[in-house]
Amino acid sequence: MFPPGQKVLVAAFAMLFATAGCPAASPEPPEKPAQQAPLPARFTDAAARIIEAARKDEASYRRLQELCDRIGHRSAGTPSYDRAAAWSVEQMRAFGMTNPRLEDVPINRWTRGRESLTLLTPGGPRPIPMLGLGRSIGTPADGIQGEVVVVRDFEELERVKDTVKGKIVLYNFPMREQGEGFGGYGEAVAYRSGGAVRAAQHGAIAALVRSVTTRGMRTPHTGMMSYQDGVPRIPAAAIPIEDAMSFQRMQDRGDRVTVRLFMEAKNLPDGPSPNVLAELPGREKPEEIVVIGAHLDSWDVGCGAHDDGAGVTMTIDAVRLLKELGLTPRRTVRVVLFTNEERGIDGGRGYAELHRAEAARHVAAFETDSGGFRPKRIGVGGTDEAVAMVQRYEPLFETLGPVEIRKGGGGADISFLGKDGVPLLGLGTESGHYFDYHHSDADTVDKVDPNDYRESLAAFTLMTWVLAEMDETLPRTPPPTTPPPAPAAGVAK
Amino acid sequence: MFPPGQKVLVAAFAMLFATAGCPAASPEPPEKPAQQAPLPARFTDAAARIIEAARKDEASYRRLQELCDRIGHRSAGTPSYDRAAAWSVEQMRAFGMTNPRLEDVPINRWTRGRESLTLLTPGGPRPIPMLGLGRSIGTPADGIQGEVVVVRDFEELERVKDTVKGKIVLYNFPMREQGEGFGGYGEAVAYRSGGAVRAAQHGAIAALVRSVTTRGMRTPHTGMMSYQDGVPRIPAAAIPIEDAMSFQRMQDRGDRVTVRLFMEAKNLPDGPSPNVLAELPGREKPEEIVVIGAHLDSWDVGCGAHDDGAGVTMTIDAVRLLKELGLTPRRTVRVVLFTNEERGIDGGRGYAELHRAEAARHVAAFETDSGGFRPKRIGVGGTDEAVAMVQRYEPLFETLGPVEIRKGGGGADISFLGKDGVPLLGLGTESGHYFDYHHSDADTVDKVDPNDYRESLAAFTLMTWVLAEMDETLPRTPPPTTPPPAPAAGVAK
Repeated sequence: MFPPGQKVLVAAFAMLFATAGCPAASPEPPEKPAQQAPLPARFTDAAARIIEAARKDEASYRRLQELCDRIGHRSAGTPSYDRAAAWSVEQMRAFGMTNPRLEDVPINRWTRGRESLTLLTPGGPRPIPMLGLGRSIGTPADGIQGEVVVVRDFEELERVKDTVKGKIVLYNFPMREQGEGFGGYGEAVAYRSGGAVRAAQHGAIAALVRSVTTRGMRTPHTGMMSYQDGVPRIPAAAIPIEDAMSFQRMQDRGDRVTVRLFMEAKNLPDGPSPNVLAELPGREKPEEIVVIGAHLDSWDVGCGAHDDGAGVTMTIDAVRLLKELGLTPRRTVRVVLFTNEERGIDGGRGYAELHRAEAARHVAAFETDSGGFRPKRIGVGGTDEAVAMVQRYEPLFETLGPVEIRKGGGGADISFLGKDGVPLLGLGTESGHYFDYHHSDADTVDKVDPNDYRESLAAFTLMTWVLAEMDETLPRTPPPTTPPPAPAAGVAK
Repeated sequence: MFPPGQKVLVAAFAMLFATAGCPAASPEPPEKPAQQAPLPARFTDAAARIIEAARKDEASYRRLQELCDRIGHRSAGTPSYDRAAAWSVEQMRAFGMTNPRLEDVPINRWTRGRESLTLLTPGGPRPIPMLGLGRSIGTPADGIQGEVVVVRDFEELERVKDTVKGKIVLYNFPMREQGEGFGGYGEAVAYRSGGAVRAAQHGAIAALVRSVTTRGMRTPHTGMMSYQDGVPRIPAAAIPIEDAMSFQRMQDRGDRVTVRLFMEAKNLPDGPSPNVLAELPGREKPEEIVVIGAHLDSWDVGCGAHDDGAGVTMTIDAVRLLKELGLTPRRTVRVVLFTNEERGIDGGRGYAELHRAEAARHVAAFETDSGGFRPKRIGVGGTDEAVAMVQRYEPLFETLGPVEIRKGGGGADISFLGKDGVPLLGLGTESGHYFDYHHSDADTVDKVDPNDYRESLAAFTLMTWVLAEMDETLPRTPPPTTPPPAPAAGVAK
């Protein structure tokens, strides 16, 4: 479905991340180790103190509110992102982190510009809410006008493929209600990611996709799409689920559905954008690095409160809480706030490339990118031995829900470190409502419940402490075989 | 709060309607009559047949879908409204209603034009979703730029009134969660209706209001506002609850909140727009008229599926079902689909004026304008004797939930008939989610559950049959004393 080509690979990555973390998709989990010796008091004591402090913490949630209110969205490559990066440095400097700094990496520079979709028939003209998809090309200046062919899935497209030439294909694939994990997303996002290519292969002039969500208030949800070499590039946009359903009914009723799509979207040449880094130096093994991270960028709508603002402030405040509690761990904790995860995971790729020389000193990488919901699990990517080592600390999390520690986890941004053998971990949350807000104007800070957020802050801080303090060193992850296994991640993009 | 002046009176009406139907606000209900003689078989048999037919009916919900898909919004005075009026005539002609026709009445002609709100500081510029309020004036062509003063309510405005001169007042009054009735709406809508006047009295240059809803996906909700003679007219717009909360936090944090508001809104001179009328002539007393109605117009966003598209198709199909069942009642049933309820109840006023000569022959008027939810009650405005007479038929509704028949009811559109003594009735629904969609782009047909809709269709059709068939004639409602009591209505605008 996604033959080689850089952008396509990125989309393939995104797809793989999307399905990982789903119980059904996980490889059989290793047996949990039999009850071992009790954990040393320095873990149990620290755990109790971390959980208590995080649960009563006011500053971190306030910081998330401030990030959203003062800066708004943080689309990589925009002045707003740059303000967020400077703000992050300032935040970390204020409580004495070591060497807060910006580190430029090359990123895709896509700009949305003005855009609109107008229903012409039946009963038009009337405006249809829409969001162009990330990396899509624009339309000619006077738009693209055409008849819409609605299909429910790729299979139906195949059946009607001879009728779509010169027309606009709408994929009306309904996302399944989310249970645990991100399985429903993985299935539905295929239409957003690959729909334009499939439609263009049959001569379509544009692609529309039903927003990847299960609930809507006429809310379009954007996200990345990709092209394929040798297939004409056509513009692609998301419409609300309401309008996809309406277009379907119109077609079923025999009405001719015609629209005009206008998009100024452009892909400019790649340019620099900064990751944000800072450290809490380790007390015994400062040369060993535990990366904790989240992506600082968001889509250019809403303020990315769940995706991934909550992760950003959790990451910053995990270190602040450790400092306030006087818990300096044995190893160095490095905060990395990644740029441009949304349009290509560029920050994660760039970080791994810039830090390849010290890759061997990265002993673990831990990402939070599942929103500011209650913590449910911590996924551990890597060998069964690594999983078992981390599982030994599961009892520390018991009062948090509990939080299950299980095989299979990581995150989009840190996935590139995984290729260098770094064990990857990801925080999983009670994410049943994640996609209500995801990539939409509705992903605002009021959607993050402060108490749920604090529970995840506690879990994230505690696992950070464990990774940086544990006696054992997690075994490296062996290089991927070919074809590579799905990068283990609890994170959907 | 609303001194005389036509537009102000309209707003006052809207306010009163908004609170009526709320249990706490109702006058003490009369004792229900002791068990009377069983209802004649022609009622019990017809009730069973009507309920059965409505519950399995597919056509009415499909009609509602078609109205939304083919026509979209139905803002009075637009070509879209005119198409809806022509469509309604066609629908009623198709199943043989008598004399489907358009009847022009004068309406307010307000046009929205382009509009936008931009947050300038902190962290701007960024667009804020907004909807100008109905009947608001526009801004100068280059907009209005100013500092925002956020107040939680009128009381706080009074405390800070000396600081609002030359500024933009934002009312951040949170609507209470709805229980039964529309009490929370009545309380919150005062800021939308009267906020501009109160702000202008203290020298404000524009007014913003938190959308009157309890849940949002960054969704602004519009609605009518009004001006007051002698007070400067300033533009007024609604913003999503998310942004109202954000502006509040910004102010509380000490940030200076500045925005630019741009609105092309205009009030053109009044012009004609049609009500839609048709009859089912009575078999014994054709000169006696039972009006059943809903308002055909909607706001110029979404498609007004709950408000009041569902009422429109229920009204049309109540007659179709009676015809299909061969149930021609004793009295004439007249369908009236009213124009421009939203911006001034002009269709209702116009109908009452045009038909004053036959007012005495109107024996009842029954409105549905509480959305396509499950039926909960039928409110009866009028004398206690009238209420008791209708309550006698309550057992017929038992399998529908049951549906309670109680004192206090009517509807905005039919309220003008009430002044001529016509007993008024209104269908009340399980409306806890009504304001999630109300007056927003999200009021689309997928929000109307087909089964809930059919239950209300059954209740509405059955009460239509009762009113047109009952042996008794409901006593006229005495003319209002001065000041008039709240027009009894189960309907919020």
